[in-house]
Amino acid sequence: MKAEIITIGDELLIGQVIDTNSAWIAEQLNLIGIRVVQITSISDHNDHIIKALEESSKRAEIILMTGGLGPTRDDITKDALCEYFNTKLAFNQDAYKNIERIFKLRGFRITPLNRAQAEIPENCTMLLNANGTAPGMLFEKDGRIYVSMPGVPFEMKSLMADHILPRLQPLSLLSIIHRTILTQGVGESFLAAKIEAWETNLPVNIKLAYLPQPGIVRLRLSASGHDRHSLEKQVDESVKELYQLIPEYIFGEGDDTLEEIAGKLLKSHGYTLATAESCTGGYIAHLITGIAGSSAYFKGSVVAYSNEIKENILGVKPETLEKYGAVSEQTVQEMAEGIIEKFRVDCAIAVSGIAGPDGGSEEKPVGTTWICVQTPSGSITKKFTFGEHRGRNIRRAALAALDLLRVKVTG
Amino acid sequence: MKAEIITIGDELLIGQVIDTNSAWIAEQLNLIGIRVVQITSISDHNDHIIKALEESSKRAEIILMTGGLGPTRDDITKDALCEYFNTKLAFNQDAYKNIERIFKLRGFRITPLNRAQAEIPENCTMLLNANGTAPGMLFEKDGRIYVSMPGVPFEMKSLMADHILPRLQPLSLLSIIHRTILTQGVGESFLAAKIEAWETNLPVNIKLAYLPQPGIVRLRLSASGHDRHSLEKQVDESVKELYQLIPEYIFGEGDDTLEEIAGKLLKSHGYTLATAESCTGGYIAHLITGIAGSSAYFKGSVVAYSNEIKENILGVKPETLEKYGAVSEQTVQEMAEGIIEKFRVDCAIAVSGIAGPDGGSEEKPVGTTWICVQTPSGSITKKFTFGEHRGRNIRRAALAALDLLRVKVTG
Repeated sequence: MKAEIITIGDELLIGQVIDTNSAWIAEQLNLIGIRVVQITSISDHNDHIIKALEESSKRAEIILMTGGLGPTRDDITKDALCEYFNTKLAFNQDAYKNIERIFKLRGFRITPLNRAQAEIPENCTMLLNANGTAPGMLFEKDGRIYVSMPGVPFEMKSLMADHILPRLQPLSLLSIIHRTILTQGVGESFLAAKIEAWETNLPVNIKLAYLPQPGIVRLRLSASGHDRHSLEKQVDESVKELYQLIPEYIFGEGDDTLEEIAGKLLKSHGYTLATAESCTGGYIAHLITGIAGSSAYFKGSVVAYSNEIKENILGVKPETLEKYGAVSEQTVQEMAEGIIEKFRVDCAIAVSGIAGPDGGSEEKPVGTTWICVQTPSGSITKKFTFGEHRGRNIRRAALAALDLLRVKVTG
Repeated sequence: MKAEIITIGDELLIGQVIDTNSAWIAEQLNLIGIRVVQITSISDHNDHIIKALEESSKRAEIILMTGGLGPTRDDITKDALCEYFNTKLAFNQDAYKNIERIFKLRGFRITPLNRAQAEIPENCTMLLNANGTAPGMLFEKDGRIYVSMPGVPFEMKSLMADHILPRLQPLSLLSIIHRTILTQGVGESFLAAKIEAWETNLPVNIKLAYLPQPGIVRLRLSASGHDRHSLEKQVDESVKELYQLIPEYIFGEGDDTLEEIAGKLLKSHGYTLATAESCTGGYIAHLITGIAGSSAYFKGSVVAYSNEIKENILGVKPETLEKYGAVSEQTVQEMAEGIIEKFRVDCAIAVSGIAGPDGGSEEKPVGTTWICVQTPSGSITKKFTFGEHRGRNIRRAALAALDLLRVKVTG
């Protein structure tokens, strides 16, 4: 079963937008055993769209399109689809109801341009877009499946997850099982050396991929074969061995996030949390509050971006700041104690570091970061040396802090 | 003069790597007036490479390829090029000298695999790769130009800058100018209705594109013609009219971000800022502190994720919370006043809302958000109704708050 991806939009061809949709779609299709043979980015023109559809149909059975469906340039793509599938536009009541729902939520009035989004080719199956006004459209022709989706990534992703992947999965003959193990606090090459023997001894039908991100390395095992059940057993076995090999680095699996796992642990222990953040600037609080329901355990945060705030709000002693500096073991400990007292919480995370690009010194180079985590079951203060890049330092500090919290709450 | 880009590599088709090369190349070509008509990502296979070259040649005069030239899979792409251009591989002395130079720099010994990289199709022009061992290769056939480059971005970029763009520039007769205007707080369709007359009256050689993101709509004007200077004047004129038409929505141009612009404004006025955040959970502080040097104007934040913190730390009156609720005009005003007093700052942003998915009611549905901004030159409190999606509500609330700050600081 082969697929092609067509992304439509002049913004791609002038280089204003990087096509991230294609990589995401390709990865998802791969995960269900469907191979992508070509990705094509084309302009918003009728002829070009039709030509691309014709050519893709010669190479693949599944053709997924994104883009060209915004309210302002609706017509070109939909007209091209009508021409290609030999049909005409018709008003779709369900698509319109979805537009009404979304406009009601946003408190806006529907314009004629938005109403036109409910007009779709008569012979397509409308796919409800949970996150936007442009519906997905599915066509079948000569044994091939064609889908047109909006180009906005989060709208495309929900259409893929809600409608398209569930439809395509049964078409693939090969069973592929994936399991992704998440590690924190260890670099890719160090990890590779550590698990080398295990990797070499993996069954031949299991492939391992290292997927590094700043602060996190994901290990994805992909097993392919015809019997799903025995594949599952095989993968279970291999994963079990991995857990025994590197228990200290594994924090979760799949789509788990550290903030989610830390949150669940806090909840199950009945603990509350607050953060006192300097270099992370509120990013840890942001990660934690990104989780729905986090108000059950998260009370809040003080972002102390000046010494004055560290003293006045968190109660860090002026002598501590003077003697040891804002980026020091003593300061983060006092920040943690201060937030626990002020916010009346059980657990605290305190972080102070030099995010860069300026502010580094010989003794404390950019990337130097102190983290203190206090919980009823123990506390820890640790120094990290991250890199040169501001954004990455902030991200890595936050992940390291959440991981320390996870470890300390667990025991 | 039309161009196509072909990127070669299985890693693109399984979604492991996002194709960033194409956007970069397309942007560079656009800047010298060469239009990219299609971008195609294909696999490392002989037939597929030849087929893609044939098809591209029908549409464009310039075909730029990247990828498929690493030391381990050299042969496939180069063999395909030999077949397509009807030639054979030959050892190139200059290419080999470059390989020797690079290995000397890195302190490695040359392997046979690397020596093979100096073998290139006999009838191509070798383009010296300043940053790597795989040379660029330029072919001319039937009035068309073909270039093959390695896929490593920084190698490709130096080949483009050193050899390819200087060769292509004189071929382009057309100049193209782009300018992108950034708007906040207005939906795409509402904006389109608002500027419809202006859009209709744009000179025929200026095209307008709407590029929406959550909370932000970018308007890109692209003007093409033969005289760069008069194009610039034309675009200036059109942009000026747009500023007069929707001054309240425009916050910047090009790659500007709201947090950067707000930061610059605070700095130029000598103002300091702190935030009091409920539903945004530290995200506004995170955006602001993402900017290097933000400690010059940003003092910090209180994330008040419970009523208790709103009362105890920010000094919101219990009666206010009881009478009006945490998501209310009165509460955000008291939050703003509280943070100004506690943090001794000139400006404050206070936000309280229902991010969702739970916590909504008939009267205050999910997405309801109150924002208060106080500055020495004025203050404002405003209610917003965003959508259903937690992450997007947080993002949109933060952008709306930063935009209110921008407007109020400006005067």
